[in-house]
Amino acid sequence: MTDVQQASIKDYMQALGQAARAASRRMAAADTNTKNLALLQTITAIEASRDQLLEANHRDLEAGRQKGLDAAMLDRLELTPKRLDGVIEGLRQVAALADPIGEITDLRYMPSGIQVGRMRVPLGVVGIIYESRPNVTVEAASLCLKAGNATLLRGGSEALHSNQALAACIASGLKAAGLPETAVQVLATTDRAAVGEMVAMPQYVDVIIPRGGKGLIERISREARVPVIKHLDGVCHVYIDAEADFDKAQRVAMNAKTHRYGVCNAMETLLVHFNVAEKMLLPLLEQLQARGVEVRGCARTRAIKSGVLQATEADWYAEYLAPILAIRVVDSLDEAIDHITRYGSQHTDAIVTENYTTARRFLREVDSSSVMVNASTRFADGFEYGLGAEIGISTDKFHARGPVGLEGLTSQKYVVLGDGHVRR
Amino acid sequence: MTDVQQASIKDYMQALGQAARAASRRMAAADTNTKNLALLQTITAIEASRDQLLEANHRDLEAGRQKGLDAAMLDRLELTPKRLDGVIEGLRQVAALADPIGEITDLRYMPSGIQVGRMRVPLGVVGIIYESRPNVTVEAASLCLKAGNATLLRGGSEALHSNQALAACIASGLKAAGLPETAVQVLATTDRAAVGEMVAMPQYVDVIIPRGGKGLIERISREARVPVIKHLDGVCHVYIDAEADFDKAQRVAMNAKTHRYGVCNAMETLLVHFNVAEKMLLPLLEQLQARGVEVRGCARTRAIKSGVLQATEADWYAEYLAPILAIRVVDSLDEAIDHITRYGSQHTDAIVTENYTTARRFLREVDSSSVMVNASTRFADGFEYGLGAEIGISTDKFHARGPVGLEGLTSQKYVVLGDGHVRR
Repeated sequence: MTDVQQASIKDYMQALGQAARAASRRMAAADTNTKNLALLQTITAIEASRDQLLEANHRDLEAGRQKGLDAAMLDRLELTPKRLDGVIEGLRQVAALADPIGEITDLRYMPSGIQVGRMRVPLGVVGIIYESRPNVTVEAASLCLKAGNATLLRGGSEALHSNQALAACIASGLKAAGLPETAVQVLATTDRAAVGEMVAMPQYVDVIIPRGGKGLIERISREARVPVIKHLDGVCHVYIDAEADFDKAQRVAMNAKTHRYGVCNAMETLLVHFNVAEKMLLPLLEQLQARGVEVRGCARTRAIKSGVLQATEADWYAEYLAPILAIRVVDSLDEAIDHITRYGSQHTDAIVTENYTTARRFLREVDSSSVMVNASTRFADGFEYGLGAEIGISTDKFHARGPVGLEGLTSQKYVVLGDGHVRR
Repeated sequence: MTDVQQASIKDYMQALGQAARAASRRMAAADTNTKNLALLQTITAIEASRDQLLEANHRDLEAGRQKGLDAAMLDRLELTPKRLDGVIEGLRQVAALADPIGEITDLRYMPSGIQVGRMRVPLGVVGIIYESRPNVTVEAASLCLKAGNATLLRGGSEALHSNQALAACIASGLKAAGLPETAVQVLATTDRAAVGEMVAMPQYVDVIIPRGGKGLIERISREARVPVIKHLDGVCHVYIDAEADFDKAQRVAMNAKTHRYGVCNAMETLLVHFNVAEKMLLPLLEQLQARGVEVRGCARTRAIKSGVLQATEADWYAEYLAPILAIRVVDSLDEAIDHITRYGSQHTDAIVTENYTTARRFLREVDSSSVMVNASTRFADGFEYGLGAEIGISTDKFHARGPVGLEGLTSQKYVVLGDGHVRR
């Protein structure tokens, strides 16, 4: 890339950022009804543009096929009429969510006489970088909009036409509600340098949310000069304690592994207390083998049933996202917690136990974004948690941890009410 | 610096980080009583080491004098018996605070049958970089300890001996409570390269809190590879509205400017509505001049009373931290908010008004960490807000905004309680 091109990408991104910053001020002051109107008018625009949307998506799909994208990527890239229905339903749901902005909590009188509380406010400008799934464009934009933020969206290059067409619908929705069209801007370039600029403009962007593969997220985290809400791995564990109920253990373990394989909250390693290992694992291994799940176990697991492969050190770290499960027999709760601490990714970990003290210790001592007792790790999800929506799952501890809904896209400022009060 | 030295500083910091990470696990599991015991035993150790502490401080002061430190720096560096009393009182106050860790909130049943809530947890390892004020060593360590974190402390090089002596007292307190001494580590080096390492070890450090001059904070923010809780400027405004009560306006404006000059929550610019400018400003200017405050005003301010200097564009951006005040007459609430948005630092801004709608708009639309009605900006403070303590004031929006107490040193994880529940 020449210096001239780089300069123009920089200028382009700066202009986008400046417009986003200006729009964010108007979005922060927008009332609930106006924001909801923008969401509902976006639905109207999508309904009116179904053909153009599918046509734009068709162009992306054609180009993708010529580029040799694999079937899974083409599937994610595709916008079917049914997926458009899902996009519309998502917009309706976000419109129906309570507006978090302006909510005042904990307003209390202090000894000085002033009243101090906290008001929920937007973060400002949210930058979202994601792969070639066009429905994410609308999903992410709608959540940011409802939380009173302006948004810069950078979708995968393969979805450029689809994203531009969807962006036009959102712009039309914003306009119809009297909000600035620049409140949601989809980058019109697929130049990778644009991403580098976007994550390094703290004056215009308040937070970056990367959604996608680990490589992308690591690159963004490394280059970012602004805070990042990110999710690296989902190496989730279920620990079947010595005092686990048999049925609950079978049910939770099978669901955590086999409900869906390619998701971040699926179990990747099963830990079982030695005292119950044979009783619990024999039927489990049968069910897993019947489902075609490859099992890689420690020596004690392999002694229980044939057909279990030898697990290596790398297996304990692995996020398979596939019908593969690592199993380790442990001697105690402490050993289970140590294993999770050492090999886990602080995403979601569950214990199955009937013991009150054991459950309480697991809840307190396992340092993951979701910690569960007698429930499948698959519940780690913004909708299941009642957030009404989810922009991602954070495995960081800073700002937002676990499933991130509208609240994670906001901050709180202090409000102080007095009657001419001064400091003594 | 040679490569060998750099390598050894890196090794040293990595070792410190590793020890801090290990200690943070034990701190996270420590119960309230144990943490409080460590704080109270630190008091015992300080009481027993008063002479050694003052002696160590004496060495720092001597070295400081020889280095030619100015009077203000030497004053901040000094540990007097009275300041030690303050340090002890601070420890007692932190011990008396409620333990935030383990608190579960919002535990609610979901339609699926699972119960979902949030548990407050420590951030992990907190790195604090500060200037040569030895009392900050104990203050920062005690807050991090109470919030269940491990801490790396890097104080100003001039306070090295004082900080080491105080660190020994804290270590003794931790030991007496059965907690790892490595839960609070004061860097034994004054090498600046150590700071560079400290802010770039995301595997060992979860957050950096720089306290000090703008130069330091800007450098840290630039170099950090971990989140930073920071506070840049305090360009605070008071806006006297057309419908302000005369007495409240005089009182709030005088207090915000003259209660203390060198603090971040002091008013630096006064905005006054044109309709009341003469009535409000004539007596205010007299009082300010009587107090020796230099006033730099806009043309309309200068027309009201002689002795007002001409304000330049730079004055609207200035954080004087001194007996200087900029004054501007504005035509409307909108102009006032625009001025604050453009020139302010999003720290603390107040309006004086009796008008309900005007007050409400100001609260909502001014995007600062503290927004006040009829109260002095000087109230922006962790103690005044009832936080019980303050580790700093954040002018960022991410994670913590405004005065940061124990809560800002924590995060929340999700807890899920089920009874063998699985995802459908």
